[in-house]
Amino acid sequence: MERPFDVFSADCPSREAWDHVTGRWGSLVLGALADGPLRFAALRRAVGGVSDRMLSQTLTRLERDGLVHRDDRGSNPPHVEYSLTDPGREVAARVLDLVAAIHEVMPAVMSARAGA
Amino acid sequence: MERPFDVFSADCPSREAWDHVTGRWGSLVLGALADGPLRFAALRRAVGGVSDRMLSQTLTRLERDGLVHRDDRGSNPPHVEYSLTDPGREVAARVLDLVAAIHEVMPAVMSARAGA
Repeated sequence: MERPFDVFSADCPSREAWDHVTGRWGSLVLGALADGPLRFAALRRAVGGVSDRMLSQTLTRLERDGLVHRDDRGSNPPHVEYSLTDPGREVAARVLDLVAAIHEVMPAVMSARAGA
Repeated sequence: MERPFDVFSADCPSREAWDHVTGRWGSLVLGALADGPLRFAALRRAVGGVSDRMLSQTLTRLERDGLVHRDDRGSNPPHVEYSLTDPGREVAARVLDLVAAIHEVMPAVMSARAGA
């Protein structure tokens, strides 16, 4: 019988995917791509605070996991677009739900911080 | 007019909460607490691979954000339990949805990795 995936288990292969998706930038990159394909510079603008290096590293990981597709048109000047794959779209939709939940609880978070 | 929260903006106060929730351990701690209150040792067992230090730091942040409640019964021997607050429960539910999405796409992720 196949062992089910379990992100709570440190040695499950899903843990690595979880780290990429929830890592500092992975989640925001997936969320930013939910609206449609973006070129590198536009993606960088959409994800406030990310550096070229971190964005590039994040995209490489998400691409290796098959969540993001890199489309190099091979044109001159170069035109490279990043988009979500089907699994990427599924994950990104849940990321945006989490974004919405965070935005919703922020007033409570601000009060908690003020009182802490 | 109040500016709405936006985790995609580096200087929005929601970004810090986002980092705590999506950080390496924050997400798994919230998910692990979704089933009910846990003591430190049980929580550590539930979140595979977390160290005492990281778990303690993660709990402090989530507690400061008002997402996790620390209940010290003040008894001897000490009995301290961690549980989700109401906002914490809302966020944890969305984290578990994201966990489910990752588990669901894992076969596709494994194929992508194998082909990469």
